[in-house]
Amino acid sequence: MMASTAVQKALQELKEGRVVLVYDADGREEETDMVIASEKVTPEGIRILRKDAGGLICTTADVVIQKALGLPFLTEVFLGMADRYPVMRELIPNDIPYDVKSAFGITINHRKTFTGITDNDRAMTVSEFASLAKRAISSEDGWAKREFGKNFRAPGHIHLLNTSERILETRFGHTELATALTIMAGMVPSATVCEMMGDDGKALSKARAAEYGRKHGLTFLVGADIIEAWRELRGR
Amino acid sequence: MMASTAVQKALQELKEGRVVLVYDADGREEETDMVIASEKVTPEGIRILRKDAGGLICTTADVVIQKALGLPFLTEVFLGMADRYPVMRELIPNDIPYDVKSAFGITINHRKTFTGITDNDRAMTVSEFASLAKRAISSEDGWAKREFGKNFRAPGHIHLLNTSERILETRFGHTELATALTIMAGMVPSATVCEMMGDDGKALSKARAAEYGRKHGLTFLVGADIIEAWRELRGR
Repeated sequence: MMASTAVQKALQELKEGRVVLVYDADGREEETDMVIASEKVTPEGIRILRKDAGGLICTTADVVIQKALGLPFLTEVFLGMADRYPVMRELIPNDIPYDVKSAFGITINHRKTFTGITDNDRAMTVSEFASLAKRAISSEDGWAKREFGKNFRAPGHIHLLNTSERILETRFGHTELATALTIMAGMVPSATVCEMMGDDGKALSKARAAEYGRKHGLTFLVGADIIEAWRELRGR
Repeated sequence: MMASTAVQKALQELKEGRVVLVYDADGREEETDMVIASEKVTPEGIRILRKDAGGLICTTADVVIQKALGLPFLTEVFLGMADRYPVMRELIPNDIPYDVKSAFGITINHRKTFTGITDNDRAMTVSEFASLAKRAISSEDGWAKREFGKNFRAPGHIHLLNTSERILETRFGHTELATALTIMAGMVPSATVCEMMGDDGKALSKARAAEYGRKHGLTFLVGADIIEAWRELRGR
């Protein structure tokens, strides 16, 4: 199957709310993430992520969402507090082995969640976040931030991941790859992702992740497929 | 079995690095957490937590560790940045349904981890944190904070949870209950915990969590058992 055909198939599956598997690249994290379009996340989707993937369940935010909601990077928040909490300066993440910058944003819960961690609660937080993001992108300045605060609290149990400024130009992580898929699918530019773990203490190998995909009828993409499709669509 | 006998059994099991189940209380979160003493966490322990519990894997820090390492509450970090990121003020967590205050601290990775999320990586972060905490408690002021920053970065993939100031006096959450167990066991005052999820979208019910304990030979405690033992031991 040609790369672009595999990507087209994945875009259709994301629109249907199905899981797509994305392996970043040899020489980078070498991890496969399960990816669901955030606007389609259900309690069943969260359950598949936590049981069959096993990493952290995170929700990405494209730069348009970050700007509309005023979302900071967690690294900036931590360093910004170094005068009051000096240890935050000591903990500076200047040695991430696979990239120059962490994508971690703040953590959130929808205010109607109870503990925030159940499949029902995490699905509510993610799907309501996607719903707000959709309206926020086209809203007047200020409305979205107030609406965000009215409906969500931080800290919470869903990790936001902020994409880099220009997607798939300077950073090629799962955050950017998964978000690019939602954009190419014409959906709210946010994906919910979770790293697939192996039972040997390591990340699930590429071969085993692909095998999981075949067994469950899920499309398996590598980062290069997505980057190629992204550049074609953007006419570069 | 009398409460204190069940607690004594659990303390012995924590010393052996085994999992203990802790249900908080009817009318509170009504959740059962798997608990392991942080100094005994291994990749196998992390794997049991993520596969059989399914919530967030978090590591508690007693107030003596918080003071030695200068650990802030995440709520304070977020609110402290509200001048630069106004949305943080909107997201104030003033409506947590089961308690007045979130226990969330910062997230960390050991600097020798790679992605930070594999069972090997999370086990390294937790066990090295416990090892540093043990030395930090008896160290001269300043040493521990520098050593912390030399060996850990933030943000990361392990959530720290800070206990309340006087444990089990003002707050009776899993953070305090699990940490109290490690203190009563004479161990580093830090537990690694994860909420047990059900397949119905909700937290695993108390009855099913107790049933899981019987099936796997794990001690099941309720918060009241721990609070009673804590007060006995503290001579109150």
